[in-house]
Parts: sequence; C-alpha cells; structure tokens
Amino acid sequence: MPTTGQGPLSEQHCVACKPGSPHLSREEVDHLLVELDGWAVEDAGDHLRLAKVFKFKGFMPGVELLNRIAPIAEAEQHHPDLLVAYGSVTVWLWTHAAGGITENDFILAAKIDRLQGD
Amino acid sequence: MPTTGQGPLSEQHCVACKPGSPHLSREEVDHLLVELDGWAVEDAGDHLRLAKVFKFKGFMPGVELLNRIAPIAEAEQHHPDLLVAYGSVTVWLWTHAAGGITENDFILAAKIDRLQGD
Repeated sequence: MPTTGQGPLSEQHCVACKPGSPHLSREEVDHLLVELDGWAVEDAGDHLRLAKVFKFKGFMPGVELLNRIAPIAEAEQHHPDLLVAYGSVTVWLWTHAAGGITENDFILAAKIDRLQGD
Repeated sequence: MPTTGQGPLSEQHCVACKPGSPHLSREEVDHLLVELDGWAVEDAGDHLRLAKVFKFKGFMPGVELLNRIAPIAEAEQHHPDLLVAYGSVTVWLWTHAAGGITENDFILAAKIDRLQGD
C-alpha cells in the first residue's frame, strides 16, 4: 500500500486509493496493529475494519472528541465512521476503495491515538 | 407516557423516565409517526427505535448537523445515537429506561426535524 514515507504512522499522510487498490492481508493488519493503542480488528461481513471504543461520562465529551477527529479526517481526506452515543464514541476505519484495511487506516488511527495525549 | 404539555411535539420537552417506565405500543408509535418527517421505525432486536438518515455531500456537513443536534439533546437530557459517515448521518432514538420508544423520542425527533428548516 502506498504511504508517503517511513517513520511513525501518526506522522505519515494518507494517499488516495483508487478503486481496486489492494488492502492489507490479515497478517499485515495484525503486524501493524501493535503500533496502535486499543484498536481491534472486526469482521464487518465483506470487509475487515479497525475499531476503537472511547468511553466517557455523559454525551458532550464524545461530541468534543468527534470534533477533534473530524478536521484530521478532512485534512487527510480519509474518513472514519463515528458512532456517538451517551457515554461512548466508536470509531471504525476501513478503506472503501480497497474493500478492506489499508495503511491509510492505520495512519488515521495513529493520529487519533495521538489526540488522546494532547 | 409523560409529556409536559400539548401542542406541537417540537415545542414540548422531554421528561425524565424512570427505569421500568412504559414505552409506547407499536400502534401508538405508528400513530405519532405521521407527525415526523422522514423517520422510520426499526426493530433493533430487543427494542424498537426511531431512525432517520440525512444525506450530504462530503463529511463535514454531517459533523455540522451533529453539532446542531447535540446541544438540543443535552438540553433535553435525552440523547440519540448518531452515526456520522462520509455522506450521511444516521440518527437513532429510543429510551433505554423504558426499553423502547417513548414520547421523549418523538419530541427530540420533532426538534431535529425543525433544525432542517432553519
């Protein structure tokens, strides 16, 4: 999968995928997963996806997290699915054009992980 | 179900439900549904819920809609589940304490409908 360079995932940038671009194998996904914090691999039927659940007290902290993730996703032009509920936000990442998980998903996941440390 | 008064749903306010409060029957739900715009009733397994999908171009308009819904939900202390994805926001409403749909859900749905006309 194309990435813009080496170094920490959180400092790389997503590269546009064309339809039909390959996704990572399950082995590649498991290998990269150790670089992330608290993400799991889910089988969503016809594709794998990365998933992370953030827990909060109340509703607005989840809204605030979404508002911190959104500009990063927009800047990378790579967008997660975000489920905001009372007490939690679930983030799902996969690459539609590739039909699975790509390095772009790991890059965005790493940037989201980095938010927590701000 | 308790409501604070008569008049348009969008001008009523949610009333706290206690655990075990009754939910509306399917017939009551169907009767009230005509007062809403574009909502459907979904069977989520062990409960019914109201659902509405908003379609957009891109990602940020959905984030903006969520940010308009959130303070209303917070003010009413009645919170939907919101799935933000590229091109859409899905809103689900049900009342956990009642195990189904209550008038509170209709009140919040009506307030969300009213947002679109702003």
